[in-house]
Amino acid sequence: MAKRLFDYQNEEDVNLPVLIKSAEVRIAKNGKKFIAFNFQDQSGHISAKYWNASEADIAQFQPGEVVLLGGKRELYQGNPQIKINSLRLATQEEGNNPADFMEKAPEATDEMSEALNEFIFEITNANWNRIVRKVLADHQQAFLTYPAAKSNHHAFAGGLAFHTLSILRLARSVAEQYSAVNKSLLYAGAILHDLGKTIELSGPMSTEYTVAGNLIGHIVLVDELVVEAAQTLKIDENAEDMLLLRHVILAHHGLLEYGSPVRPQLLEAQILHDLDELDASINMLTTAYQHAEPGTFTERLFGMDNRRFYRPSKGQTYPDPGLQSK
Amino acid sequence: MAKRLFDYQNEEDVNLPVLIKSAEVRIAKNGKKFIAFNFQDQSGHISAKYWNASEADIAQFQPGEVVLLGGKRELYQGNPQIKINSLRLATQEEGNNPADFMEKAPEATDEMSEALNEFIFEITNANWNRIVRKVLADHQQAFLTYPAAKSNHHAFAGGLAFHTLSILRLARSVAEQYSAVNKSLLYAGAILHDLGKTIELSGPMSTEYTVAGNLIGHIVLVDELVVEAAQTLKIDENAEDMLLLRHVILAHHGLLEYGSPVRPQLLEAQILHDLDELDASINMLTTAYQHAEPGTFTERLFGMDNRRFYRPSKGQTYPDPGLQSK
Amino acid sequence: MAKRLFDYQNEEDVNLPVLIKSAEVRIAKNGKKFIAFNFQDQSGHISAKYWNASEADIAQFQPGEVVLLGGKRELYQGNPQIKINSLRLATQEEGNNPADFMEKAPEATDEMSEALNEFIFEITNANWNRIVRKVLADHQQAFLTYPAAKSNHHAFAGGLAFHTLSILRLARSVAEQYSAVNKSLLYAGAILHDLGKTIELSGPMSTEYTVAGNLIGHIVLVDELVVEAAQTLKIDENAEDMLLLRHVILAHHGLLEYGSPVRPQLLEAQILHDLDELDASINMLTTAYQHAEPGTFTERLFGMDNRRFYRPSKGQTYPDPGLQSK
Amino acid sequence: MAKRLFDYQNEEDVNLPVLIKSAEVRIAKNGKKFIAFNFQDQSGHISAKYWNASEADIAQFQPGEVVLLGGKRELYQGNPQIKINSLRLATQEEGNNPADFMEKAPEATDEMSEALNEFIFEITNANWNRIVRKVLADHQQAFLTYPAAKSNHHAFAGGLAFHTLSILRLARSVAEQYSAVNKSLLYAGAILHDLGKTIELSGPMSTEYTVAGNLIGHIVLVDELVVEAAQTLKIDENAEDMLLLRHVILAHHGLLEYGSPVRPQLLEAQILHDLDELDASINMLTTAYQHAEPGTFTERLFGMDNRRFYRPSKGQTYPDPGLQSK
Amino acid sequence: MAKRLFDYQNEEDVNLPVLIKSAEVRIAKNGKKFIAFNFQDQSGHISAKYWNASEADIAQFQPGEVVLLGGKRELYQGNPQIKINSLRLATQEEGNNPADFMEKAPEATDEMSEALNEFIFEITNANWNRIVRKVLADHQQAFLTYPAAKSNHHAFAGGLAFHTLSILRLARSVAEQYSAVNKSLLYAGAILHDLGKTIELSGPMSTEYTVAGNLIGHIVLVDELVVEAAQTLKIDENAEDMLLLRHVILAHHGLLEYGSPVRPQLLEAQILHDLDELDASINMLTTAYQHAEPGTFTERLFGMDNRRFYRPSKGQTYPDPGLQSK
Amino acid sequence: MAKRLFDYQNEEDVNLPVLIKSAEVRIAKNGKKFIAFNFQDQSGHISAKYWNASEADIAQFQPGEVVLLGGKRELYQGNPQIKINSLRLATQEEGNNPADFMEKAPEATDEMSEALNEFIFEITNANWNRIVRKVLADHQQAFLTYPAAKSNHHAFAGGLAFHTLSILRLARSVAEQYSAVNKSLLYAGAILHDLGKTIELSGPMSTEYTVAGNLIGHIVLVDELVVEAAQTLKIDENAEDMLLLRHVILAHHGLLEYGSPVRPQLLEAQILHDLDELDASINMLTTAYQHAEPGTFTERLFGMDNRRFYRPSKGQTYPDPGLQSK
Repeated sequence: MAKRLFDYQNEEDVNLPVLIKSAEVRIAKNGKKFIAFNFQDQSGHISAKYWNASEADIAQFQPGEVVLLGGKRELYQGNPQIKINSLRLATQEEGNNPADFMEKAPEATDEMSEALNEFIFEITNANWNRIVRKVLADHQQAFLTYPAAKSNHHAFAGGLAFHTLSILRLARSVAEQYSAVNKSLLYAGAILHDLGKTIELSGPMSTEYTVAGNLIGHIVLVDELVVEAAQTLKIDENAEDMLLLRHVILAHHGLLEYGSPVRPQLLEAQILHDLDELDASINMLTTAYQHAEPGTFTERLFGMDNRRFYRPSKGQTYPDPGLQSK
Repeated sequence: MAKRLFDYQNEEDVNLPVLIKSAEVRIAKNGKKFIAFNFQDQSGHISAKYWNASEADIAQFQPGEVVLLGGKRELYQGNPQIKINSLRLATQEEGNNPADFMEKAPEATDEMSEALNEFIFEITNANWNRIVRKVLADHQQAFLTYPAAKSNHHAFAGGLAFHTLSILRLARSVAEQYSAVNKSLLYAGAILHDLGKTIELSGPMSTEYTVAGNLIGHIVLVDELVVEAAQTLKIDENAEDMLLLRHVILAHHGLLEYGSPVRPQLLEAQILHDLDELDASINMLTTAYQHAEPGTFTERLFGMDNRRFYRPSKGQTYPDPGLQSK
Repeated sequence: MAKRLFDYQNEEDVNLPVLIKSAEVRIAKNGKKFIAFNFQDQSGHISAKYWNASEADIAQFQPGEVVLLGGKRELYQGNPQIKINSLRLATQEEGNNPADFMEKAPEATDEMSEALNEFIFEITNANWNRIVRKVLADHQQAFLTYPAAKSNHHAFAGGLAFHTLSILRLARSVAEQYSAVNKSLLYAGAILHDLGKTIELSGPMSTEYTVAGNLIGHIVLVDELVVEAAQTLKIDENAEDMLLLRHVILAHHGLLEYGSPVRPQLLEAQILHDLDELDASINMLTTAYQHAEPGTFTERLFGMDNRRFYRPSKGQTYPDPGLQSK
Repeated sequence: MAKRLFDYQNEEDVNLPVLIKSAEVRIAKNGKKFIAFNFQDQSGHISAKYWNASEADIAQFQPGEVVLLGGKRELYQGNPQIKINSLRLATQEEGNNPADFMEKAPEATDEMSEALNEFIFEITNANWNRIVRKVLADHQQAFLTYPAAKSNHHAFAGGLAFHTLSILRLARSVAEQYSAVNKSLLYAGAILHDLGKTIELSGPMSTEYTVAGNLIGHIVLVDELVVEAAQTLKIDENAEDMLLLRHVILAHHGLLEYGSPVRPQLLEAQILHDLDELDASINMLTTAYQHAEPGTFTERLFGMDNRRFYRPSKGQTYPDPGLQSK
Repeated sequence: MAKRLFDYQNEEDVNLPVLIKSAEVRIAKNGKKFIAFNFQDQSGHISAKYWNASEADIAQFQPGEVVLLGGKRELYQGNPQIKINSLRLATQEEGNNPADFMEKAPEATDEMSEALNEFIFEITNANWNRIVRKVLADHQQAFLTYPAAKSNHHAFAGGLAFHTLSILRLARSVAEQYSAVNKSLLYAGAILHDLGKTIELSGPMSTEYTVAGNLIGHIVLVDELVVEAAQTLKIDENAEDMLLLRHVILAHHGLLEYGSPVRPQLLEAQILHDLDELDASINMLTTAYQHAEPGTFTERLFGMDNRRFYRPSKGQTYPDPGLQSK
Repeated sequence: MAKRLFDYQNEEDVNLPVLIKSAEVRIAKNGKKFIAFNFQDQSGHISAKYWNASEADIAQFQPGEVVLLGGKRELYQGNPQIKINSLRLATQEEGNNPADFMEKAPEATDEMSEALNEFIFEITNANWNRIVRKVLADHQQAFLTYPAAKSNHHAFAGGLAFHTLSILRLARSVAEQYSAVNKSLLYAGAILHDLGKTIELSGPMSTEYTVAGNLIGHIVLVDELVVEAAQTLKIDENAEDMLLLRHVILAHHGLLEYGSPVRPQLLEAQILHDLDELDASINMLTTAYQHAEPGTFTERLFGMDNRRFYRPSKGQTYPDPGLQSK
């Protein structure tokens, strides 16, 4: 199997096709333009600088293009980067299919869709069940392909659905261990909680915040979808069960400072918030461990209050931080 | 004209009809029950304790009843209260009409309704104009009669509409002084910003938070009304002007910690937030000054970060803190 | 089966044996002494005032005594209390055994001990396994009978072990779902994390903080036990695996403000902190729901940032908030 | 009329006289010196780098000089800058008059002075009136020409007086709408509140903080001027009206964290603080909108808690964000 | 020597003259008035309730009167109080001299005045020396007799001067140990830093905050005295040495949140702040230890962030916490 | 005597031996490598960039080497740096002894050791005395040679012991001035409080945090040494005096946010915390003054909340900020 970006060591010569994830044109201290690239394939992403960029270079090396990259992997201020020796667009024959280079959720779209359906099946409250099906049906495609965030955690294609499924699996364990939990409410809230990201974010590639994302935010965006679905399905949005569902969604960031307009005031709202943080943390740390050598600390992680985490030495009976499985 | 509650001095005998605003049954140190009353008429409200309450007393002296009160005004830990000597229900002949005893906005409902219409007339963006008219029409009665808060500021019948109008009048001054302001957006946002309180609060008397008020909150409740109105009126809720209007409403508490899911990111959102705080502060301080003697400090005001304010001495060329006029 | 404290309704006559959980002597407004009691049996605890207490009353009605209580259940400022009509010490024949009246963990001590051993069996790192066995053996009795807190969560006999087991069960689910987790480290940390409470707290009844608890705190107290055990067992306390274990324990409060001297810097430290909070929250909420009527809000919960939680109406397909089972 | 800095588009050739606002000498990565310029004319200011600067260049291109600038406008990391092709000092014939190039308040000094006098005329308390006239007379020239801040808001010549006038105009609207307001106190406080900036800042050009500004701060500096004026005018500084005036000035930053030694404890102190923030915010946002394209977000604004603001699309019925008029 | 208040044990009969420190009239649950007294002599102060107070009682038992008190010392909710059996005004013959009953600084006024002069003698900068002498001379009497605070620390007659002297003595040690310290500046700042309390507080007995104290605060009040003294003495208030002195005074609370308008930006300003806190803490803790039994915790101390402190057991080689000596 | 680093002025040619304190390899904008040096001798440290570094340069110019440096002192963005003209390793004949170039405590190791012993002699509690001697004996060498911090304060060889001694000298003054202080406890706590830094830090040169330092922290590390010493010496670690000593050490950072697991709850714990901050502040400020010109502000000091401090003009009767003497 062909070598991928993270199969190379530092100081090793690099030669492989990669996808341009981002390409920012800047001006160097010598007054000439250069391109600050971020390249990726399914093994991860890495930065590189392309000096003395001509206008033609700038025109052709756009985000979303697949390029053939020759150079060397180096350490720059502790972080790996590629020193570029050669760069050109890949031809169709060479496999110019951007989708082949994107990081993806560890489960296939079909599997995730099926797994979701099994959880929906267990939502026994009819209103909640109908609302979930309606909203999900309206945004199915985006829900299964969008990342869960621009960066931070689950920032890969399918990340939104995968993050949702991971929470649902944790939720099942919790509901089995604690009999007071209303499983239907917890599942319905978990499925919908981040679905507003399909409006907040621009899509699976070169992900940015939309104007709606900035001005309204994904928490309120999905709440609006819920009340509109209720209006369409002729469900009384002010019935208690509908208030409970909306509350669980609105409160899932836990603190007002984190953008929830209300703090959790239901057992299930508190649990959803806690599981959301737990799964996001595990995903961030697992990803960070992959980029740190055993026996060293990771970079500071913005999503974890700028903490650095220690990846224990190999000698330990320690698992490899592969992507989390089910 | 008959004397009202706040026309009496300390140590003066009191004899007048009042409305029972609240009546809480408690147990005294001697094991007997008493009723902790809050009486009101249009001049304000005052507390009183009714000792050795019988079950019959408890049954008849309910919130919303008009009673004939005999007693003496006294100071208790610096605050005025009534020492009750006699208490009985008022008869119909004696004028048992609760509405006559409620604190009210200084403007009549009709005047406020008319003044509002003049502002709506100046909203030149068609979508904003239609949304405002639709949402207002659906909640007209409550909007004109509800208070703006359970306590804190504008906690009187019609307070919600009066607070809204006060902000609109400030907004007109600001829009005239600063030409960059989009007057239509500022007016539309001002009219709708607190309208969710018609769902958040239980009504003009014995005001409490509803379950929807606690679990969803008035900011999101009115945002939901806006998107549902758009759905009904076939206005694209994701058109930029609709995003702007929703943003101005959602951001009006200014800080995430105060319950806005997004902070102001538009000039008009920032202005609405600032004027909302300005009018609320002036109302709270004017009310507090009314209950403090010249040359002394008010009680600590919860809504003003627990600060006490100084009411200057009479000798000063100082206006009487009457209720604010237009 | 005999009726217990929480089998009575408001306004119902009460007649049953209870345990005195606390008894505080105060002076009433009439200058006479009274006793503020807190009575309990296994169904919960409730307060009551005993007026005009004689010195003999004060001498005999001490915490830890079983008494025969006659009176009526009433509501006082929204909370239930007992109005005392008669009170006397129970005789031996009447069943004066305090242990029969204490709230207890829903699992028996033996079962919990056995379940713990199964988890210890899965700790494959020899140093961690030996340290856990040594420290646990030295504090076995207290560990199985102490509460997990003076009030807040798991404040009942056996609460410390039950809380620990609940976390271990959640930890098993997480370790199965996320392959990067070092299960041995997570289990060892979970078992030891709160064990310092056997020194911090005074015991299962009339629980108070000890001087060591106040001046050192349970987090450092158990860390000290770990290094002393290492010294005894001739394990190098500065070997990496020992640093990891101590870190997981020291960091389990998550934030410096909450008393951890370091923040989590290991995947397992972060997970233990999150699961600790999750289990504590569920326990606090389940307990609070038991004391709230369906369709109402609980009291403000100190351990949950003073939030009130809503217990949904019976009409909902909602489980009874019984004590959580396994 | 000749083109000015902000009449040019990106990628357009630039050729015009500008004022050097600041010129910082730095060392490039190639070891040679360059000058980081900030050029300005009355349309705004823009940065530029001058590579390989000789000692002669450094000596002549000083802040305060007018230069003839040839180059091209470009985007650098999203912000406009000038790429310099040629640069030389302007001759007297070419119009080397720095004052012609400084951003100025939108009203002339004379008009502002006259407008201020009208407000002073309405201060009916004799002590306040005399203090205001005395302090203003002692610092008239600086008050009319200084900026209101080094950067942030009203950072242009005459900005201090213009900001003061804007607040006074808002204050008039508020005093007319709310009858409880003491107009004399509000006006006197508004005129003096920022006058200490004439000592805190170094002057209208190349504005820096003075040592007195850093060690004492403008709030206390003007309070000291007030007590010294009282001493000179033989007014009792401890009479109540003098305490009120000093309080309104000292409290105008609203929060201790923002440098006020006391929080507002008077209605007028609270209003002055609110209007100060309102006018400063509107000025910051209007300026930021001028530098952002319609349909995009501004830069992060330091003075607005690092928020970015959205400038709506042209299609909207939106006013051009010209400098605010009266 | 006659027994004083704190020479009595709990449950011991009490019979001695005391000073009424405060007397608040309240209404009991039975509707009758009572007086909540705070009695004091030089050994400390203690509270007591006087039931069924007649109007004559209220008229005669005013703060500042010496009374003969008969009763019993009791514990009420963990705090000592007196149960009053008899109470009457002391006659002149019985020694009705309030000053004999006030807590005082452990050094005599004359000694403190002399000790201060020795420090002033060491201020070698002429401007600082003249300013200190002038301001001190204008407020000498108050400076030597006022407390340093209403409650919290050094809340006794002469406390302000004693606190100042304690800081000066610490300052001397520090200046001797660290040669970089400007001793003149540190001494001048220390002497003046709290002198504004002679205006902020009402006097040595029944100490309250004045209106000037509330609206301006002691930090700015003394700064104003300094600039007025400079104006009188024809010292340039803007010379650098005068800026330094004013800065040291203004910054002595260390943080803006604590009321300093600027944070320390001079070595001596930082040291003065640190020594001010150190001496205040030691005074608060020593006083609290005096009221706690060995082997117990003190009450929560408001001035120490509500912490409780542990007074070690007698067995320890621990000094008695007498009032601190020089 | 030969000139040292801080004897040179800006723009002066430099020629002297220095120690390489740190050497970081980076990549310049032209794609070539350069070394960012930090050179030091006993007068201080200064940065420099070495352009176009060859692999041989990188290999030989390692931290810890003495080099002969030729170049010029320049200002770069307000901070001094060296422009390198020539650089080569020093030979043994030229005095290649790193220890000669390290900043050191102003007292010799022997003197400090002796001075420490005198303080230990005054610890009259036998347990505390034995524990201090045992722990100190086990870490004597490191204690006398380590710095007190990686950067911030006392970041020089012997800084840990010197900081400790400075606190002890302040402690002596305080104990003499305030008779309630337990001198033995204060001294024992002062000696041990930072001793965990001998494990937290890597050593006197190129100081870094160890894994134990990051994961456990110096506060808990020394507490563990104390309990292990007690175990070895057969002292009951739970006797009250041992709790007191551990508390004083654990609480010395004062606030939970600063890493203390408990806040001070003993007089001596509070004093140790205050003196620790006082000595650290004075050291940081004295060092910063040495690098600032009279009449200017220092850089922002990270350890002082990013404040800048003003170094007064020479004209003042101001001492030179030499290193603090005893």
